[in-house]
Amino acid sequence: MDEKTTKENLRDIQNEPDLRNIGIDKVGVKDVRYPIVVLDKAKERQHTVASFNMYVYLPHHFKGTHMSRFVEILNEYSGEITVENLPSILSAMKERFEASTAHLEVAFPYFIEKAAPVSGFKGLMEYECRLLGSFGEVEDYIVEVKVPVTTLCPCSKEISDRGAHNQRGTVTVGVRFKGFLWIEDIISVVEASASSPVFSLLKRADEKYVTEQAYDNPRFVEDILREVAIKLKDLDGVKWARIEAENHESIHNHSAYGYLEMDYTDDSKE
Amino acid sequence: MDEKTTKENLRDIQNEPDLRNIGIDKVGVKDVRYPIVVLDKAKERQHTVASFNMYVYLPHHFKGTHMSRFVEILNEYSGEITVENLPSILSAMKERFEASTAHLEVAFPYFIEKAAPVSGFKGLMEYECRLLGSFGEVEDYIVEVKVPVTTLCPCSKEISDRGAHNQRGTVTVGVRFKGFLWIEDIISVVEASASSPVFSLLKRADEKYVTEQAYDNPRFVEDILREVAIKLKDLDGVKWARIEAENHESIHNHSAYGYLEMDYTDDSKE
Amino acid sequence: MDEKTTKENLRDIQNEPDLRNIGIDKVGVKDVRYPIVVLDKAKERQHTVASFNMYVYLPHHFKGTHMSRFVEILNEYSGEITVENLPSILSAMKERFEASTAHLEVAFPYFIEKAAPVSGFKGLMEYECRLLGSFGEVEDYIVEVKVPVTTLCPCSKEISDRGAHNQRGTVTVGVRFKGFLWIEDIISVVEASASSPVFSLLKRADEKYVTEQAYDNPRFVEDILREVAIKLKDLDGVKWARIEAENHESIHNHSAYGYLEMDYTDDSKE
Amino acid sequence: MDEKTTKENLRDIQNEPDLRNIGIDKVGVKDVRYPIVVLDKAKERQHTVASFNMYVYLPHHFKGTHMSRFVEILNEYSGEITVENLPSILSAMKERFEASTAHLEVAFPYFIEKAAPVSGFKGLMEYECRLLGSFGEVEDYIVEVKVPVTTLCPCSKEISDRGAHNQRGTVTVGVRFKGFLWIEDIISVVEASASSPVFSLLKRADEKYVTEQAYDNPRFVEDILREVAIKLKDLDGVKWARIEAENHESIHNHSAYGYLEMDYTDDSKE
Repeated sequence: MDEKTTKENLRDIQNEPDLRNIGIDKVGVKDVRYPIVVLDKAKERQHTVASFNMYVYLPHHFKGTHMSRFVEILNEYSGEITVENLPSILSAMKERFEASTAHLEVAFPYFIEKAAPVSGFKGLMEYECRLLGSFGEVEDYIVEVKVPVTTLCPCSKEISDRGAHNQRGTVTVGVRFKGFLWIEDIISVVEASASSPVFSLLKRADEKYVTEQAYDNPRFVEDILREVAIKLKDLDGVKWARIEAENHESIHNHSAYGYLEMDYTDDSKE
Repeated sequence: MDEKTTKENLRDIQNEPDLRNIGIDKVGVKDVRYPIVVLDKAKERQHTVASFNMYVYLPHHFKGTHMSRFVEILNEYSGEITVENLPSILSAMKERFEASTAHLEVAFPYFIEKAAPVSGFKGLMEYECRLLGSFGEVEDYIVEVKVPVTTLCPCSKEISDRGAHNQRGTVTVGVRFKGFLWIEDIISVVEASASSPVFSLLKRADEKYVTEQAYDNPRFVEDILREVAIKLKDLDGVKWARIEAENHESIHNHSAYGYLEMDYTDDSKE
Repeated sequence: MDEKTTKENLRDIQNEPDLRNIGIDKVGVKDVRYPIVVLDKAKERQHTVASFNMYVYLPHHFKGTHMSRFVEILNEYSGEITVENLPSILSAMKERFEASTAHLEVAFPYFIEKAAPVSGFKGLMEYECRLLGSFGEVEDYIVEVKVPVTTLCPCSKEISDRGAHNQRGTVTVGVRFKGFLWIEDIISVVEASASSPVFSLLKRADEKYVTEQAYDNPRFVEDILREVAIKLKDLDGVKWARIEAENHESIHNHSAYGYLEMDYTDDSKE
Repeated sequence: MDEKTTKENLRDIQNEPDLRNIGIDKVGVKDVRYPIVVLDKAKERQHTVASFNMYVYLPHHFKGTHMSRFVEILNEYSGEITVENLPSILSAMKERFEASTAHLEVAFPYFIEKAAPVSGFKGLMEYECRLLGSFGEVEDYIVEVKVPVTTLCPCSKEISDRGAHNQRGTVTVGVRFKGFLWIEDIISVVEASASSPVFSLLKRADEKYVTEQAYDNPRFVEDILREVAIKLKDLDGVKWARIEAENHESIHNHSAYGYLEMDYTDDSKE
């Protein structure tokens, strides 16, 4: 029997020294798909499906990383992934890899039941979310959510005798915070800042309502960024935010786009 | 108060006659996202997240379709979507829309626990699935699953003094069948037809095993198509299949691709 | 020196017999990227970048396909790809592979200069096109173009006191035809069937114009399908069409979708 | 005649004051598609097709941005986009928008003719490139190129009695530099750092060559990052680089991934 066939004797290449003297900022697995359970403000727990990126810092003296250990850690947490246990997972990653820094990115669709504004008919709305965590000399966590909205152009409304072009927009908000933060609260801020929220189920009376609401609340991408920036200030614990707004213009084949970062711990933006 | 603001009086444009005399093959909603529960061979039920396309035939005399009714039907089924209740959902669509034909397409990731071949360590593998149903003069159902595999090139192995190029391949199989069919059984057929299955978690002894297994079982896309075609014949109830194999070539920046349709109710392919 | 290292002696695995007795409908290369030149109604020739799928029928007695020959054929045509030389390329494919049938799919962005409706300012609009050809017992060619448009909802306009929801839509038209057909002519048909064309460059007076034009021409996906179907009948040489319309709804997070096939050689749809 | 219909009198909403006191980091157009000509080391000029993102800083006192001006600037440069005229385009953006900072991102496929290693047969290889420029208080330019490669796993080779798993990998390199830099030179560095380059056209003798070359040069993502990092140091003018390597693992359904930043103006990484 060849030595190679004995598991105990398989040479551990990754563990061998590397002489090129270059540490690697991030190394790990990308796009690992895994079903997870997340916290839900209305229903306590929600089943969904996530994509994981898991990386660690690799010191210059190691040749490689034992990639299978990332998936072992995922298995141990059995898919319970919440804002609250990110530090514990990152801690496990640091320890298992003896790494100075660990990074975790979890992306998943999140569903919220939403009632139509007039008929009250209920439908489920999907919001794409990401939890981003880094644990090294400092800990850093960002909760991100992508919110589809209706935007109606203030310029088009003002200059036109009738109608106004409007379209689906996507507003992506990532926040750093103290304490705990509900995804639902970020979504509420964004939907209140657009011309109108979007819905999965609207009857005729609802369609009339959202059409008129959008017409009455025209918003440029610039307006949405500023409205979200101001409203986030009032959300308990928000320390920093990046806000992105993209309008899939109905009169063009490209997007209008805006990006804004806000640091709520100082006054530099004001 | 304007008449328009009274829900009861909102004019039903969709219901009005159309004089252009053209019936529409399919009209409805596309990419509606909804969490669902599907049947699971090992664990009975599995939570996942789906994208729905729901269409009906629109007769020439109607101007439009009441799109919100599709989402209402989804709500009524509360996300219990299985191979077995597709006919019932399609039936509800036909009835609600008074349509001669209804079409339903449901796409979702499906997870199966899979043990590594030597260490026995378990990991979750994701398979993208689709259920396709049409209910008109005839009923037609297709179950489709996309299976990632390893493929090792027979030519490269034969002509090279050492090694052989290999890569991830994607095999997509859609089948028509009598009775009931487990997604798991289609996956088994495909994985047995490739150079090796792929896994989410492999330790060193497993990596040695799958490397050698792939080297010992070289397969062109052509081989995979033919192997799957032959093995499907032995799955109870399979009447027809379309098989697609795509190799994301490791030595090229394009794919090798093959496509094959098999009708198991006659002998025309043989 | 090992025999294997001599090119002349490398065993030709693909050419060897296969005993599984299954012919393969399509086998070849997918997503080969290649710069091409296409015919341009306004400027004679246009440089663009294409993705090629090239397949042939593989008889049951051959084990594999010599994939490199597809790219050799591409090289010979040096990127001159037009509706007119598709038959010649398919012919070359049939001959080189001794195949009974050959399939070619070429996808590329195509640009047209378009003047804004009031200011006359010019901008370039991109349209994604595909040429599809099959050459076996019969020859079959389809020209396909994807046209972004503005669609304004007739129901929303009718029931609302002010405004009307509108959005970017995508209309995809594939046609079979006799003789020659300009991509530009299909685009004109689609743009005239929507609530408004979209533009890359609009000044304020133009924005007012297209906003009002869209408001004055509300269209469901159903309307667009029917309008395109009727107008295509008047384009010289069009024998058959498939028409797809998708509205990226501004009030929903899903699309409204319709699909229609028309055979202009009979009256079956009317 | 209503005042609104007179172009001269259309109110300029964007130009009006905003009282929310928030400046916006980036606002502009995204995904504008445009055919361009780029410099080509072998053939002087190359026609291709680009996607543009163009943003400026918007001071807190302005309500909005005149988006059409971005497309006007594109028109003026008529699609001649090179590393050398980026500063001039950014300058034009700053001036036209009276902006303190302008950002430009141009993404395009770039083709290089590449000879197979034994037969010498030529084929075209596509590389996705991006030019990124910011012009504010400081000027900052990055040239980025995505290079597909073959990677063969050192661990799999070491522990297996025969064969070794390999796969297509994607290496993305972005560099800051002094003077001028050819995209071709970055590509050469990456291809020399992988197990083997990939090709669009390989005959049997070439396939044998690249198979053996890959087997003789096993590389983890970690190895590729370090090799590229070391070789870039020898490219004239390179001041800084970010290097990303992703292996589309042939034995997994996820990727192995690594990321590294190098500052060649100091010794901090060594």
